[in-house]
Amino acid sequence: MQFISEKRLGDDILEREFTLGEIPGILWTPGSAFKPVPLILVSPPPLGLRKAYPRLLARARQAAAEGYAVATIELPWSGDRPRSAAADQARADLHRALQVGEPVTDDIVDRLILPLVDQAVPEWQAALDALLARPEIGGPVGYSGGVISIGTRLAVVEPRISAAVLFAGSFVPRAIFEEARQVTIPLHVLLQWDDEGNDRQMALDLFDAFGSKEKTLHANMGGHTGVPQFAGEEGNRFFTRHLK
Amino acid sequence: MQFISEKRLGDDILEREFTLGEIPGILWTPGSAFKPVPLILVSPPPLGLRKAYPRLLARARQAAAEGYAVATIELPWSGDRPRSAAADQARADLHRALQVGEPVTDDIVDRLILPLVDQAVPEWQAALDALLARPEIGGPVGYSGGVISIGTRLAVVEPRISAAVLFAGSFVPRAIFEEARQVTIPLHVLLQWDDEGNDRQMALDLFDAFGSKEKTLHANMGGHTGVPQFAGEEGNRFFTRHLK
Repeated sequence: MQFISEKRLGDDILEREFTLGEIPGILWTPGSAFKPVPLILVSPPPLGLRKAYPRLLARARQAAAEGYAVATIELPWSGDRPRSAAADQARADLHRALQVGEPVTDDIVDRLILPLVDQAVPEWQAALDALLARPEIGGPVGYSGGVISIGTRLAVVEPRISAAVLFAGSFVPRAIFEEARQVTIPLHVLLQWDDEGNDRQMALDLFDAFGSKEKTLHANMGGHTGVPQFAGEEGNRFFTRHLK
Repeated sequence: MQFISEKRLGDDILEREFTLGEIPGILWTPGSAFKPVPLILVSPPPLGLRKAYPRLLARARQAAAEGYAVATIELPWSGDRPRSAAADQARADLHRALQVGEPVTDDIVDRLILPLVDQAVPEWQAALDALLARPEIGGPVGYSGGVISIGTRLAVVEPRISAAVLFAGSFVPRAIFEEARQVTIPLHVLLQWDDEGNDRQMALDLFDAFGSKEKTLHANMGGHTGVPQFAGEEGNRFFTRHLK
């Protein structure tokens, strides 16, 4: 983990860009922490770190004010990272199916999501290794993420993650449903009820499949990107209950 | 509206039992309000005011501390109010169907719920008339209720109710789905995901049917009576957003 920039945002928050091998990332830490702070990993949406920056920064500011460190890394094939021709093809197939009103086949979903999960999960684990090695960051660790299949796999394979806020806004391969049954950490799942590019029933079935004893579903109106502010605040309170 | 008892609970809250015709009720008001306060109508569960009292009082204390008046009245055929042979029969039919695993027919649901809605809704409106006539109570008015069909009808016919927290924990007649489409006020719907005596799909369909632009569904684990404390607190924050 190599820091490539450092910037103070007011008195309260330190923003550092880093690279982890080839992967760009950002770490925000509270300006005035006297002991190691808990960590929230925030997975960006697939549109890339640069475009998602204002949204990520807003969340980081809020979390830092509450005493968390927040870290994010670029997803595979997003932002400035090398593209994947196979992923581009799968995304094109998905958009075509949605546009012409054809069913989104298991094949499309598998091609779109499974390689992304396989690639991203070890990267998040490597980021976690590097972040937890830093003296200013302790635990526990929460995960807050956009591609729900990545969060599901991480919750199964990564015991250092204690609680997760998951956004049910992407298609889910059947294989991930099996993994969902093995999840036991507390979950807070956000669903946009009228998300035009999402399968609501699939999201409800996935919520039902999670093995966690404590899991909460918050469904709100508005499209994919219309998560209301109060829903974000409820996610923060979920972390407060489980990480503090 | 006739007050029959008055009790100070600490410095902060005044509890008054009343009767509205034959209907018993309770009004809690903040001890130190200098101007008319907003009102939350809390419908008790069908088990009756007396048995629900500790739960109702806990909610009233919290709401009074936040500056609300809280009022409740006994539902028809509950508590010490006269029974209804037809409602008892419908409830017995429901329990038998659930016990032997038979489908709960529309006929049973209609006989159980529709007369209750027809009877209860004008009673709540009469209570609202009496409560809003008091100088210490102003507006706006929120409704928080257990039998979701009553809350649905009230939200349609009673323009003085500005926002509602509804508990999706009872069967819903088909006729109520039509009324749900006419609801336009902000709604906060609670669902216990594994409620043994409830039809989850029916609850999700009802949530979908509500015409409100702002509606939120909060689903949690645990049975019918297992609503977690944090879910209640989120309901309070919903009222704060809409009644203050």
